[in-house]
Amino acid sequence: MQQHDVRFMPDNLTVRVPEDTTVLNAASQAGIQIKSGCGGKGSCGACQVVIISGDVQVEGTGKLTHDKIEAGVRLACKTKVKGNVTVEVPPESRLQEHQVLMGSVQGLLSEKEINLLHKYGLKPLARKILLTLPEPTLTENGADWAKLYIELKKHLNLEEGIIDVSLSVLRDLPEVLRAGNWQLTVTIAELPERFEVIKVEPGESSAPTYGLAIDIGTTTVVVYLVNLATGELIDKQGTYNKQARYGDDVISRIVFSTDEPGNLKEIQMSVVNTVNELVDKICLKHKVEWADIAGAVAAGNTTMTQLFLGVSPKYLRLEPYIPTMSYVPPVKAGEIDLHMNPLGPVLMFPSVASYVGGDIVSGVLVTDMANNDELVLFIDIGTNGEIVLGNRDWLVACACSAGPCFEGGGISFGMRAMPGAIERVDIDPESFDVTLKVVGGGKPVGICGSGLVDVLAKLREAGIIDRAGNFQKDVNSFRIRETEEDKEFVLAWSHQADGDKDIVITENDVKNLIRAKGAIYAGIRSLLRMVSLEVEMIDKIIIAGGFGNYLNVPDSVQIGLLPDLPTERFEFIGNSSVKGAHLALLSQQARVEAVDLGKKMTYLELSAGNDFMDEFVSALFLPHTDLSLFPSVEG
Amino acid sequence: MQQHDVRFMPDNLTVRVPEDTTVLNAASQAGIQIKSGCGGKGSCGACQVVIISGDVQVEGTGKLTHDKIEAGVRLACKTKVKGNVTVEVPPESRLQEHQVLMGSVQGLLSEKEINLLHKYGLKPLARKILLTLPEPTLTENGADWAKLYIELKKHLNLEEGIIDVSLSVLRDLPEVLRAGNWQLTVTIAELPERFEVIKVEPGESSAPTYGLAIDIGTTTVVVYLVNLATGELIDKQGTYNKQARYGDDVISRIVFSTDEPGNLKEIQMSVVNTVNELVDKICLKHKVEWADIAGAVAAGNTTMTQLFLGVSPKYLRLEPYIPTMSYVPPVKAGEIDLHMNPLGPVLMFPSVASYVGGDIVSGVLVTDMANNDELVLFIDIGTNGEIVLGNRDWLVACACSAGPCFEGGGISFGMRAMPGAIERVDIDPESFDVTLKVVGGGKPVGICGSGLVDVLAKLREAGIIDRAGNFQKDVNSFRIRETEEDKEFVLAWSHQADGDKDIVITENDVKNLIRAKGAIYAGIRSLLRMVSLEVEMIDKIIIAGGFGNYLNVPDSVQIGLLPDLPTERFEFIGNSSVKGAHLALLSQQARVEAVDLGKKMTYLELSAGNDFMDEFVSALFLPHTDLSLFPSVEG
Repeated sequence: MQQHDVRFMPDNLTVRVPEDTTVLNAASQAGIQIKSGCGGKGSCGACQVVIISGDVQVEGTGKLTHDKIEAGVRLACKTKVKGNVTVEVPPESRLQEHQVLMGSVQGLLSEKEINLLHKYGLKPLARKILLTLPEPTLTENGADWAKLYIELKKHLNLEEGIIDVSLSVLRDLPEVLRAGNWQLTVTIAELPERFEVIKVEPGESSAPTYGLAIDIGTTTVVVYLVNLATGELIDKQGTYNKQARYGDDVISRIVFSTDEPGNLKEIQMSVVNTVNELVDKICLKHKVEWADIAGAVAAGNTTMTQLFLGVSPKYLRLEPYIPTMSYVPPVKAGEIDLHMNPLGPVLMFPSVASYVGGDIVSGVLVTDMANNDELVLFIDIGTNGEIVLGNRDWLVACACSAGPCFEGGGISFGMRAMPGAIERVDIDPESFDVTLKVVGGGKPVGICGSGLVDVLAKLREAGIIDRAGNFQKDVNSFRIRETEEDKEFVLAWSHQADGDKDIVITENDVKNLIRAKGAIYAGIRSLLRMVSLEVEMIDKIIIAGGFGNYLNVPDSVQIGLLPDLPTERFEFIGNSSVKGAHLALLSQQARVEAVDLGKKMTYLELSAGNDFMDEFVSALFLPHTDLSLFPSVEG
Repeated sequence: MQQHDVRFMPDNLTVRVPEDTTVLNAASQAGIQIKSGCGGKGSCGACQVVIISGDVQVEGTGKLTHDKIEAGVRLACKTKVKGNVTVEVPPESRLQEHQVLMGSVQGLLSEKEINLLHKYGLKPLARKILLTLPEPTLTENGADWAKLYIELKKHLNLEEGIIDVSLSVLRDLPEVLRAGNWQLTVTIAELPERFEVIKVEPGESSAPTYGLAIDIGTTTVVVYLVNLATGELIDKQGTYNKQARYGDDVISRIVFSTDEPGNLKEIQMSVVNTVNELVDKICLKHKVEWADIAGAVAAGNTTMTQLFLGVSPKYLRLEPYIPTMSYVPPVKAGEIDLHMNPLGPVLMFPSVASYVGGDIVSGVLVTDMANNDELVLFIDIGTNGEIVLGNRDWLVACACSAGPCFEGGGISFGMRAMPGAIERVDIDPESFDVTLKVVGGGKPVGICGSGLVDVLAKLREAGIIDRAGNFQKDVNSFRIRETEEDKEFVLAWSHQADGDKDIVITENDVKNLIRAKGAIYAGIRSLLRMVSLEVEMIDKIIIAGGFGNYLNVPDSVQIGLLPDLPTERFEFIGNSSVKGAHLALLSQQARVEAVDLGKKMTYLELSAGNDFMDEFVSALFLPHTDLSLFPSVEG
C-alpha cells in the first residue's frame, strides 16, 4: 500500500502513514490528540482541522458550516489521506488544555522520540525482576539477603558493582520470601553507579512498575506517569506551579525563600505539593499505588531544581551567580515527600549554570543536537529565555533576562496563553481594522505571548509604530489615542471584550516587548559571536516552551525576535523539558548523556562582558539597527 | 638497656619493657589500668599486685600488712622489673568496674591490638579533610558541589569511584563555603565501595572526628568513643542491655519481638536507648557533640544485630534458622536514631549464621587466627557459647546452647560477676571448710560463673559429688544437707552472707552446670570431628567473654569444660567483640577483613547431625566419660 507523509502544524510534526488513513489516526500516531466526542462517527464536530495542502478524500463534513468548509476546515475523522498532506490542528480541537503544554504525546511517544529511544535503548530507571531462590535447609542455611544478592548479581550480570538495599526492604524480605515460597519480584532501580532494591513482593507481581517524568517550570508543572516496562505513557497532567503565589519570576521566589527562616521549606513544599496533586490525580484515575511508582526524573531551571530539593537558591542571584550543584546526586523520594515509593530515586537533570538549568539540558537531549553535524540553535522561551547553540563538537549556552513579557508580565493586557487570550492579531494596513484569534474562541480578555508578537509585527507593518516602537502621530485611526500617561492602540472595544474595558496595547508595552525580543536576539548574537559564526550558518532553529508552541515565525522574524532564516529551518518541539525527562526515565544511556550534556555545555555569562550590552542596544529596533541582518524584512 | 617480659595474669598479656620499669607502667603498656590514687608515690596502697614469679626490686611497701607481703603482694608503683616476671593483678586493683568487661584498654590499645593496627594500617571509618576551593568569578562559575567534588577526588586520589553526598550537606554547603572564605573542613566516611560526605564546616575545624565502637551483648552493652584521627580511646562505658526486661536470653527476646505488632520497635529502641545513654554519658563528660561522631562500628550476635536495626529475628528461631542478612549493608545513624551524626554510617559486623554472629567475627578478627598457621580454638562464653576452630586456611564455627548458667541463670544463687559475687571457691578436702573470694571484697550475695566452675571442681575434688554430679551420702559435713526438694552444700552461712539466707549450691545446680559445660565441650569435640583433628593438635585456646576474663583454667579443665591442655596454651582476651569493633573503626583493611571473615567461616549446625548429641551425652560427667581425654585430671 502507498505511504504518504502527513505534516501537522503548527507542531511541524510529520508521520508517514498508509493511504486512506484518517487524519484523526495520523494525528494520534504523531502524538497529537484531537478531540473526538463521537468516536469517529462524524457527528460531534469536535475534530475540526484545516487542510492546508495536499490530497485528501472527504467522506463527510457533519455539521460544519459552509463558511468553515470554504475556509478549508474538515473533520479529521472523516478525512482520509490520499497523498502528502499538511494539516493545521487548531488549539480548540486538541484534547489537552491549551494553557499547559505537556508535550505532544498521549499514550505514545512521537516518532522522533521513538527514534531517540531506539538509539539510546530502553533501560528504564526501575524494573521488576522475578527470581526464585533456593529454599534453605539446615545445611544450606545462608541468610535471606545473601541469597537474594547472589541471584541479583547473576541476573544483572554484575561482576563487581554495588547493589544497595535499605533497612526497610530488609525488614520486609523474610516474610516476602516465605509468603512467595522463595519466589519473589524485586523492583530494582538502575542508577549511574549502582543498583538499588526499591521493593520486594512475594511471588510474581502483577503490578507494573511506574515512573514519573516531571517538568518543573516557573509557571507550570507537568507530570507524566509512565509504565516503565512498556514505555507507555499512562497519563499526563499539568497545572500552575503553586509557587506563583510567592512571585511570578524566579528572582522574587529566591528573595522570598531567603527572607525568613521557614520560607525555604514553605516554598519547597508548595512545588512538591503541586507535583503531588498531579500524581494523586493520575493515581486515583488509573488505580496506581504510590509504592508502585519506583522512580522519577525531573527537569527544571536551576532555581526550580534547588527549591524542589529544599536547597537555598540564595547565591543564584548574587554575583557571581553560583548554583549549589550542577550535577545533582540522586535523592530518595521520601527525602522530599514526593508521592511515590519513598525509596525510589528522584533524578534531576543537571544544571549548567545559575540561569541555564536542567530544563534546558533536557531540551537539548530531546533535540539530539549534541549528536549531529548540523548547527542547531535551541531557544526555550518561558518565563526566561535560554539559548543553546552547537552541534556534536561543542555547545554554548546563555540566558537572557527577557523578562516575563511573552508570558504576559509587564504588559497592560498581558496574560498567559489560556482561554480568552488573544493569540493571533491582524491589522489591515489601510483601514486599521483588527482581526483577532482568541484561545478557546470566546471573547478576548487579554493578549498572550504569540498575540504580542503579532501585534508588534502588525503595528509596524501598518506603520502605526516606527522602528523604535514610537507611535506615529500622522496615522489616522480612531483606534489610536493618547491618554494622560501614554499612547495606545485599541485591539478590542469593551463591547467586544469579556470585560468592561477596551483591550489596548500601549507605547510602553511596545517598548517592553522590544526590550524582551531584543534581549533574546542579542543573546543569539552573543553566542554566535562567541564562536565566530554568522546567523546564516544556523541549519536549524528549534523552539521550545509555552511561548513557542504557537509562535508565528514570519511575525517573529518581522519584529527581530528570531533570526531571518527560511521558515523550513524552524521547528517547534513544545515542552521539551518534560519530553527529555520522559526519555531519561526510559533509558539509562539517555540519563548518562544528560549528565554529559550538563558538562559539555559552555555557559556564557552575558553580564560578564560588554558584547551583550552592545548587541542588546542594537536590537532595540524593529527588527534591528543593522538591517542587513534581516534582508527578508526590508525586502 | 636490658629488656624483660612482664606477663600479667589472669589476662595472660605479656609486654616487653626495659629493666627498672615499674610494674605499674608495664601494666599500663599492656593496657591494664591499675588504680593509682597517689600517682605512684607508694602512699595510697591502691596498686596492689601479686608477684607470682621472677626478679623484681621492691622500693617500698607502704601500708601493706605483713600477711599481705608474705603472700607476695607488692605495690605496682614501687616494684621495678629486674627480669622476666609474672604478675597477678587482682580485680580490686583494677580501675574499671569488674561487672562489665570493656576490653583492657584505656587511652591506649594493647600491644597486640597496636600490632594488628600496624598490620592493617590506620584508615579510620571517617576523617576530616581541609580543602580550599578556588573562589568563583563571573567566568569561573562552577557550582559549589561540583568544585568540592573535584577537590575531593583529587585529595582522595580517586580516578573513578563514588562520593555520595546527602541533601542536608548540600543544603549547608553554600553558607559553609562563604563563611570560611572558600576554605572548608569536610568530614568524609570511607565505606567499602564509596565515600560519603558526612559534614562540612567553614574554615579549619578544631573539633576532632570521633567514632563509636559498640559491643551489643545480650546481657551487657559496651561503647567506646574513639578519636578517629589519633586512634585514641577517649572513654568507654558499659551497662546492662535494657532489653533484659524482655527476657535474659535471645530466644525470649525473639519471642517477644514477634508476639505483637509494635513489640519489634519497642525492643529495638530499648537497645538503641541503652547505647544512646552510654554515648550521652561520654559526650557530656568530654564535651563532645553528637554531630562530631561521624561513624560507628557495632558487633553483636545475630539476634542482637537484627534487633538493633529493627529487623525481625523471627526466622532465627524457626528451623532451619535463617538470618535475614549475614553481610549487613551500612546504615545511616539517623535511620536508627543513634546519638551521633545522623548521616554517619553505622557498620555492623557480619553474621555467619543465626547463632554465630558479628560478635564472634569481631573476636576472630582480634585473635588474628585467620592469618596464622597455628591451630586456634576460640571460645566466647557469654549468654551463649560460640566456638571457632581454624587457622589461615580454614575456619569452622558452631554455637552450643550452653544456657545462661555461667552468667548465673538457672542456678539457685547464681548471679552475674558483679560486687558480692563469689568468684573463687576453695573447699578443704579434709575439713570441708570453705574459703571464698568475693568480687569487691564484701560479703557474698551469690555465685558468678568463675565461682561456679570452682565450686564444681572443688566439690568433686573433695569427693562431695561423684563424676555424674550426684551428692555423696557418705560425706560427713554439716555443710551438706537435704531439703524437701533437693540436696545442697552450704558455701556461706547466712551470718557470713549479705542477706538472711545461707548461700548454697544444690544438686540440681550441679546438674545444670554439668549440662552447660557438657554442651561447650561437646561443641569443641564436634568441631574437631568435623575436621578430623584431635584436641592435642590445638596450639592455642583463646577465651573471650564476660565469663572468660577471670576463669580458673585448671578448675575448668578439672570439670571438663575446657580441653585438657597445658595452661600456657590458654589465653584470655576479655571482650573481643568491642575490641574488634574498635579495630575496624580505625582500619579500612580490618573492615574488609571482617566481611571476608564472615564469608570464610563455615558454620556447623549442631542440631543437624547426631554427633553433637552423642558428644553431649558423653560430656555429662566430670570431666567426661572418656577419661583418656583428660589425662591430667586422672593423674
